[in-house]
This record gives sequence, C-alpha cells and structure tokens, in this order.
Amino acid sequence: MSKRGILAIISGFSGAGKGTIVGELVKKYGYAISISATTRSPREGEEEGVNYFFKSREAFEEMIDREEFIEYAQYVGNYYGTPKSYVMQQLDAGRDVLLEIEMQGALKVKEKFPEVTLIFITPPNVSELRRRLEGRGTETQEVIDQRIARAKEECAYMQKYDYIVVNDQLEACVEEMHALLQSLHCARNNQRDFIDDIIAGFRDI
Amino acid sequence: MSKRGILAIISGFSGAGKGTIVGELVKKYGYAISISATTRSPREGEEEGVNYFFKSREAFEEMIDREEFIEYAQYVGNYYGTPKSYVMQQLDAGRDVLLEIEMQGALKVKEKFPEVTLIFITPPNVSELRRRLEGRGTETQEVIDQRIARAKEECAYMQKYDYIVVNDQLEACVEEMHALLQSLHCARNNQRDFIDDIIAGFRDI
Repeated sequence: MSKRGILAIISGFSGAGKGTIVGELVKKYGYAISISATTRSPREGEEEGVNYFFKSREAFEEMIDREEFIEYAQYVGNYYGTPKSYVMQQLDAGRDVLLEIEMQGALKVKEKFPEVTLIFITPPNVSELRRRLEGRGTETQEVIDQRIARAKEECAYMQKYDYIVVNDQLEACVEEMHALLQSLHCARNNQRDFIDDIIAGFRDI
Repeated sequence: MSKRGILAIISGFSGAGKGTIVGELVKKYGYAISISATTRSPREGEEEGVNYFFKSREAFEEMIDREEFIEYAQYVGNYYGTPKSYVMQQLDAGRDVLLEIEMQGALKVKEKFPEVTLIFITPPNVSELRRRLEGRGTETQEVIDQRIARAKEECAYMQKYDYIVVNDQLEACVEEMHALLQSLHCARNNQRDFIDDIIAGFRDI
C-alpha cells in the first residue's frame, strides 16, 4: 500500500446520489474532500477554510496566473476553483482525497494529472434516474426535463472514466466505493516509490 | 457491476506466496482458476479435466495452430498451456478467473487481451523474500541464491503490472486481493455492456 494518499474525482448525473455517497465516505472512513476557493461572498454561517476559501477577484486571478488551481470555472459571474496546495498537503499527509467535479472539468484535470482516478456514479438505468429526480419533489417538471436532457449529453463521458460505479442501494454503493478507493493504493501509478525501493533493495545482492 | 466474470493474471517472485493466496481466494470466495493442458503424462492421482487436460504432442500442436491457447510454453521437454475455451466458458458464466502465469507469459497475454488485469504479488522487501525462501528449509543454499538472482531480474517487470500487492500478512492480503478483484468489475473495460445499455436507454428520450 502506498503511504501517500490517492486522489479520485467523483462525477455523475444529477440525481445519481454522488453528494450523499461522498458525504458517507467522509463521515464513515475519513476521506478528505477539497475545499474550493471562490470569489462569491460568504453566506451566513459559512466559514473561511471550512466551507470555502473566500478570495477577491484580483487574488483569484493571481492564483490562476500562478497556476495554483487544479481546475477552476466561472459560474453565474463568480469564480470557483480547487486550490492545488490544500489537496497536495492532504495527499502528502497520507489522506485519500475526493474531488466532486463535473465531467468536462474532470477530464481536463486528468489531462494535467494522469495519476488521478476518475470515478463515474450512475443509477442502474435511465428510468431509475428519472424516478429519483421526480421523487425529490422539489423541482418543476421543466427542471427535471432539463436535467434528463443534460444527462443524455453527459452519458458519452462515461467512456472516458476509469471506473463506472452503479448506485443502486446507497449503503452497498458506499462499501463498494471504499473497497475500490482502497484498491487504488495498489495501482502501479500509486506504487512507484515502493517499486523503486524493491529495485534498490536488490541492487546490492 | 459487470455480469461477465473478470480475468486476472497473478504473478510474483518465487516465495511471494502467490500459490497460497490464489488457493485461499478459490476456497473462500469461489474464484475459478484455469486448468492447464499439458503433454506430460498424468502422475498418480491426477485426473483429466481436474488437474490438467492431458494431450498428445500432436493434439497440443494442433491446438497451437488453431490459436486455442491464451498462452503456452515448453518446459523440460513438455508443453504447458492455458486453453482459451475453458477460461471463456467460466467468464461467460459470470465467474471471475485467476491465472497464475510467470511474467514474460503474462505480458504476452496482456498484449493479446488488453482487458486482462495484471497483478504482481511481492513480499514487503528483499530481506523478507530471502527469509521466506530460507525458512522453507527444503532447498539448498544454491537453489535459494538462484531464486533470489531470478527475482532480481524479475523486479523490472513490476513496472508493467497494473497492480502491485504486498503480501505482508496472508489473511489481510487475501482480503485486499478480493476487494481489488471485485473493484475490477467497475473498471471501464468491464463495464462496456453497461455503458452501452445506459446510452441506449437515453436514445428514445
């Protein structure tokens, strides 16, 4: 097992349950999640370094110039980004880190950091996706249809992900995710230091 | 989870404990192992289709010509090979199959069947490898030195394997292997049918 933490990106359709799964993984197994930086103002109760790192537009753009983000995007006039330093600190300390990022962003991160593992969470089928979106009871039919239409576009991205995990029953899915994430410690890319040690160990024989 | 079985090749240094681990995985979790074909004569108690498929030299060479082996090699004047048909039957029936193959053979299989997963089992370090080989008490110092020398050559292969699993404590290693093998059902290459189903499910929306 590598001593360094592993970095995994979690994506999936709206309604796939990825937020709940990530929450359970943090609570039950102590995974770290990244804290985003943003230029939007803190809402009541939000704390610096807990919910977000709050930045001025100027400071955020300086961070962009210094390539201090794993990824960033603009959304409704504000910047949101994943600062590299926080994630690297966690990984160096041996903590496994989960990033919840939408698909286009996820693929960009994978290009820059090929050692990242991409995990796609999906309901077992399309009718179950619709049932879950409708079951929330909080959105209009129009919003639900928009989400389904977006998922239809997004499903092509599944083929670029390293792992496709089906969220059929929440508890089973959390256990499956944990087993999958732990097995990544044995993946070649995460065992480079160990391989070097073994090769060095043979050198004097 | 894919319904089809997954195919994994297990290799490792002599003394790494891979035979014991594969045996435990079969006994505890019902993994299938391939049955080899060979041209050597059956030893007392060996049964056709249980220990080996026994073949004449002529029949074996016809199978080679018809490309009916996943891999084969000659050893001390006899052929040994892994027949494709048996492995495919097991995979189609949804059983996960483990093949114990030495490294050069394993890499050849990976070239022909990229969907195969290569797993390398190793003791935690070189002195532990030596300790285990000496601890058996059944081999001369010369044989032990030969095995260490061979392992020294083989350690370069680790970099070509998909996963490096450290066998420090047997029971923990068996559990780690099982979790790893099950997580492979979620790997993209083993989820192709599922991805196609999801894409097809969106088609009519």
